[in-house]
Amino acid sequence: MATVSDIGLSAAINVSMAVAFLLVFAFLRLQPINDRVYFPKWYLRGMRDSPVSSGAAVQKVVNLNMRSYLKFLSWMPAALKMPEDELINHAGLDSAVYLRIYLTGIKIFVPISILASLVLFPVNWTNDTLDSMKVVHSKIDKLSISNIPYGSNRFVTHLVMAYAVTFWTCYVLFREYEIITTMRLRFLASEKRRPDQFTVLVRNIPPDPDESISELVEHFFLVNHPDHYLRHQVVYNANKLADLVEKKKKLQNWLDYYQLKYERNPSKRPTTKEADERQKIMKDPQSAVPAAFVSFRSRWGAAVCAQTQQTSNPTVWITEWAPEPRDVYWNNLSIPFVSLTVRRLIVAVAFFFLNFFYVIPIAFVQSLASLEGIEKALPFLKPLIKIDVIKSFIQGFLPGIALKVFLILLPTILMFMSKFEGLISQSSLERRSASKYYIFLFFNVFLGSIVTGSALDQLKAYIHQSANEIPRTIGVAIPMRATFFITYVMVDGWTGVAGEILRLRALIIFHLKNFFLVKTEKDREEAMDPGSICFDWCEPRIQLYFLLGLVYAVVTPLLLPFILVFFGLAYVVYRHQIINVYNQQYESGAQFWPSVHGRIIIALIVSQLLLIGLLSTKGFEETTPVLVVLPVLTFWFYKYCKNRFEPAFVRNPLQEAMRKDTLERAREPTFDLKAYLANAYLHPVFKGREEEDNMSISEDVGMEEVIVPTKRQSRRNTPAQSKYEGSDTLSLPETVHER
Amino acid sequence: MATVSDIGLSAAINVSMAVAFLLVFAFLRLQPINDRVYFPKWYLRGMRDSPVSSGAAVQKVVNLNMRSYLKFLSWMPAALKMPEDELINHAGLDSAVYLRIYLTGIKIFVPISILASLVLFPVNWTNDTLDSMKVVHSKIDKLSISNIPYGSNRFVTHLVMAYAVTFWTCYVLFREYEIITTMRLRFLASEKRRPDQFTVLVRNIPPDPDESISELVEHFFLVNHPDHYLRHQVVYNANKLADLVEKKKKLQNWLDYYQLKYERNPSKRPTTKEADERQKIMKDPQSAVPAAFVSFRSRWGAAVCAQTQQTSNPTVWITEWAPEPRDVYWNNLSIPFVSLTVRRLIVAVAFFFLNFFYVIPIAFVQSLASLEGIEKALPFLKPLIKIDVIKSFIQGFLPGIALKVFLILLPTILMFMSKFEGLISQSSLERRSASKYYIFLFFNVFLGSIVTGSALDQLKAYIHQSANEIPRTIGVAIPMRATFFITYVMVDGWTGVAGEILRLRALIIFHLKNFFLVKTEKDREEAMDPGSICFDWCEPRIQLYFLLGLVYAVVTPLLLPFILVFFGLAYVVYRHQIINVYNQQYESGAQFWPSVHGRIIIALIVSQLLLIGLLSTKGFEETTPVLVVLPVLTFWFYKYCKNRFEPAFVRNPLQEAMRKDTLERAREPTFDLKAYLANAYLHPVFKGREEEDNMSISEDVGMEEVIVPTKRQSRRNTPAQSKYEGSDTLSLPETVHER
Repeated sequence: MATVSDIGLSAAINVSMAVAFLLVFAFLRLQPINDRVYFPKWYLRGMRDSPVSSGAAVQKVVNLNMRSYLKFLSWMPAALKMPEDELINHAGLDSAVYLRIYLTGIKIFVPISILASLVLFPVNWTNDTLDSMKVVHSKIDKLSISNIPYGSNRFVTHLVMAYAVTFWTCYVLFREYEIITTMRLRFLASEKRRPDQFTVLVRNIPPDPDESISELVEHFFLVNHPDHYLRHQVVYNANKLADLVEKKKKLQNWLDYYQLKYERNPSKRPTTKEADERQKIMKDPQSAVPAAFVSFRSRWGAAVCAQTQQTSNPTVWITEWAPEPRDVYWNNLSIPFVSLTVRRLIVAVAFFFLNFFYVIPIAFVQSLASLEGIEKALPFLKPLIKIDVIKSFIQGFLPGIALKVFLILLPTILMFMSKFEGLISQSSLERRSASKYYIFLFFNVFLGSIVTGSALDQLKAYIHQSANEIPRTIGVAIPMRATFFITYVMVDGWTGVAGEILRLRALIIFHLKNFFLVKTEKDREEAMDPGSICFDWCEPRIQLYFLLGLVYAVVTPLLLPFILVFFGLAYVVYRHQIINVYNQQYESGAQFWPSVHGRIIIALIVSQLLLIGLLSTKGFEETTPVLVVLPVLTFWFYKYCKNRFEPAFVRNPLQEAMRKDTLERAREPTFDLKAYLANAYLHPVFKGREEEDNMSISEDVGMEEVIVPTKRQSRRNTPAQSKYEGSDTLSLPETVHER
Repeated sequence: MATVSDIGLSAAINVSMAVAFLLVFAFLRLQPINDRVYFPKWYLRGMRDSPVSSGAAVQKVVNLNMRSYLKFLSWMPAALKMPEDELINHAGLDSAVYLRIYLTGIKIFVPISILASLVLFPVNWTNDTLDSMKVVHSKIDKLSISNIPYGSNRFVTHLVMAYAVTFWTCYVLFREYEIITTMRLRFLASEKRRPDQFTVLVRNIPPDPDESISELVEHFFLVNHPDHYLRHQVVYNANKLADLVEKKKKLQNWLDYYQLKYERNPSKRPTTKEADERQKIMKDPQSAVPAAFVSFRSRWGAAVCAQTQQTSNPTVWITEWAPEPRDVYWNNLSIPFVSLTVRRLIVAVAFFFLNFFYVIPIAFVQSLASLEGIEKALPFLKPLIKIDVIKSFIQGFLPGIALKVFLILLPTILMFMSKFEGLISQSSLERRSASKYYIFLFFNVFLGSIVTGSALDQLKAYIHQSANEIPRTIGVAIPMRATFFITYVMVDGWTGVAGEILRLRALIIFHLKNFFLVKTEKDREEAMDPGSICFDWCEPRIQLYFLLGLVYAVVTPLLLPFILVFFGLAYVVYRHQIINVYNQQYESGAQFWPSVHGRIIIALIVSQLLLIGLLSTKGFEETTPVLVVLPVLTFWFYKYCKNRFEPAFVRNPLQEAMRKDTLERAREPTFDLKAYLANAYLHPVFKGREEEDNMSISEDVGMEEVIVPTKRQSRRNTPAQSKYEGSDTLSLPETVHER
């Protein structure tokens, strides 16, 4: 068990590393040559010019103004200065609400920390259970619940604290949900005209032998939404073309690179191949996917279509609100709708195995990284380990690092899984990956570190335990793992966040590209890699801190200040990054908040269950009913919030739509919506080409807007009964064929 | 443990009781005097006249035609003769689909029974485990899985059977869901014009200081559904009035009764009181509940409004499809919407306690009803018990009866709970009660009989077991309880169903009423009590048979024939009752099928888990992974069916609505929809009065249809910002008040 001096050393290492990172950052950011690495957002918004273009040659590269170095932390107040409204304008609502996750952490844990140190520290400290038991323990443990004797009445304090923590957390969560809902609604109301406000994505259009998909869509919506239908855009399976374009881009890059090194060497450019493929897609009816973006005359019409069921067969003509054009994940639009259920099953099973078997390598490495493990595996290191500093280093640092390395590999795999599931927008992909990652962190990092930390086979034992035995086993282990998690918070939370601001990877890549590839200003623009929030793997990691904070709030409140430092530092750092660096690829209007909220609630319930387990081993079982009330109430609170707020994040109120429609019709009665929406939902591959060689994709699209006379009626006298239910537009349902 | 002769005696008793019931029924139904008890449905449909009015005096009461007695089972083929389409016309879709539950049981269990007796009986029988172990056992146990030796490879047969049962059950379920969905859609499409097709129920209308609820509703829908809004009907809190009317009716009955006995005695009639209350409700704005039935010009408009969210605050202006007028549960419309979440929490907790503590009395009575229990409690009966017939009677009959008596009390309590939850239609109340009752039966009858059957404290032990220990404990006990459940099936399933057709209670009450109260033909009509299906407590009981059948299909297949007899008998009996007796109070269009389907799936998954548990104690643990696949696949099948079929039972497709609208507009272009809908959603209390004394409620309603100038604008120049978000119709949302 780590002692106070181990923790102290670890803290010293981490604090000095964090400070070093911040100092290096403060130095680097002042150098004009790095300007595009540390302030790309402003370049992208066109509000900053290259400092390279003015002043003396040396000053283009190095900042010689010595006074600016004195204020090396000046970016911190600068990052905090921008008001939230301006931040929303500058970086979007997603970013602003993302920052509120950190803020929520601060709001929850500041009062809890103060209360816990005022109440629980004296109650825990003034016992001598650990001293009298003569077990190995550190002073940290004396501040924890472990120091209270078996069956003591002092546990009432912890019980009351559990209530206080629950109510305060729920209160903060409720207020935040309320504020963010209002922010979202205000944001949506104040937004300018956007194509997705008028557009609905229709999927699984049933095949029809007589009409093409485009004709079918037109007829269906003209019949069923006669007053509101405006136009539509058929989706093409352009994945192959997109690959070709990508390939061409890469080859072009290499070509440019070699052009610099050698002379012009006309390589086999895939442009012709690409043009062929493009032609093929446009001509071939097979490449039209049974999906379309359908646009309406008004937001009201689109809101109605997105929220209603179109036909009596719920698996065809499925409508959903179209994602923002830049948020669409085009590759998945061509996945046949029927395969989605199977894909979801496959991913669920695969994720189960990933989640379950990933435990083994982590546990293995952790057992290696312990003192005993190293002594066993590498006996020749034995004299080295005996040195106090190295011993502390191994105990305080290595387990955290081992865990960290494993976690770096994961988000990519999870994102691949989510893509395989067939979600059709970037934002939903990120949200889905985030929830997978959270489950992973919960079982493998949180539970894994508590239960397996000591031995792998304990995990197997824990699967075989009863429902009331599991929280007990974990609960008992929790106080003992406090020091491990303190170290983890410092490594991952403090040094990690400070490292984030340095952007070491982006810095190196930018300078390499700048040196080798950049010729024009446009190239330089492309060499910037502003990055984005990375909701899919950043948010679950924040959630881990919520979980640790809530679980340890009553058990070992000493952990709380460490978590608070993380939340504070991360808030400032990410606020700075969002203002100066990150460039969000899409705007979902804070659609992720319900899952953030839900996961904090999960953490709260877990903390309550573990406390019940822990107290039941401390001779305080009779209070279990008093504590069982808490998870029931918390769950009810969750349901209440879900009813109260979640619809605002999922559905589109008609009143708002009507309001904006009316206002807009009064302001711009002559606006040409059809032209505005013409190419909004065209696959970006076509768009790019169009700009280059001005091919007539938009004319093809324009063709569709003419009312196409239905071929079926011209061919036969009576409308043919369609083979697939739902594809015929005006005929009574067929008779039932009973078995 | 009951022996074959116990079972035989029990079977003899039950079969003879069932046959006796059927004979008595066959005799009674032929007597003209009972005609209204056994054929009320035909009277209500106006297709049968009292036989009392024609023929000789004696023949009015007793059937003297001896030949008709010879064909005493003739009602059975008659009940089966009516084709399903005619049945739907005659009794509605709910009834027809309800019968399909029994049919599903037959379809599932006939092939499984045949397969099991061909395969499992020989496999189980040709062992001598039980003989060699010298434990007390009957020949029945030799046919069960208990007779297979530990670790035998013969268990592979049971494993394959489990797969066969699962796939066959899923196949039948899928086919049934498909057929019933088509039946529902065809039924809805063929339905005549009904008020609920055009009407939406709006709840939680936010209060407005300037306008009455009626004005507010009118303005809101004129603004947000300008092309579709037609009229609305405000809901009044008429519960008190309804009570008064009820009271009056009762007093009237007593009055009539005494009038027959003594001379006219003018009692204090509550008519004046009632009229006062009625006036008060109509005048008092306080009695208008913030809810309204809003009707639209077209089915399309109503479908849109029912499926969309109206305002950005999802807890106000909540719209849902209006239930059929006769399906509305008026008392609950006046419950404040905000209290619903709290009510749901209270009912959930109360039901948990009911479910948990109800176990104790059942177990107590059951332990008394055992031979040892009786010997202990009533030692003087000891010599009596020693007699073989009585001994068999106690073992084979009493436990079933004890359980049965307990269950009779329950549905009323559960219905009360569901009403307290605030559901607003009879059909949803019955569905909710049914799911509660099913949970109860599952824990208390099924698990309770398996685990507690032997000892109460085993239940406590079972709560403390691990997730993989629970199916093991229950699984082991299952083969031992087979004989108990065989008895239960015979008592509850055979005798119970045969008793149902006798309608003893209705028979007695009708004759009492007929003798004492009936004066006019209308009175006689009211004295008939046709009853209805009672979905809330009949369906969960059928589900218990599905559960028993699926659980025992692989373990003790001997149970299956008993269950098959139940399904067959019940199908005939209930088909007869539905054709001749029951009078459904509402028509939900088979909305209950998704929950029926879901519960059979639950039974299937439970059977799979218990088989895993059982096999793991038989030295066959290594196959657990092979079996674990089954519940995963079954759950996935459930999700698939939910996506594929359930929306057809919940939402209203726009295509169908548009189709019916278009057809109707072409057929009856001048139909006055407004007049048609005028009083459709008026509280029945007002309706009754109106017919009696022609008071002007409909004129009051007519008043609302005039466009009311908004008072707010006439008072101020700028439209006032409403206090509650969502109640103002055209203003931008307020700024956020951050904490």
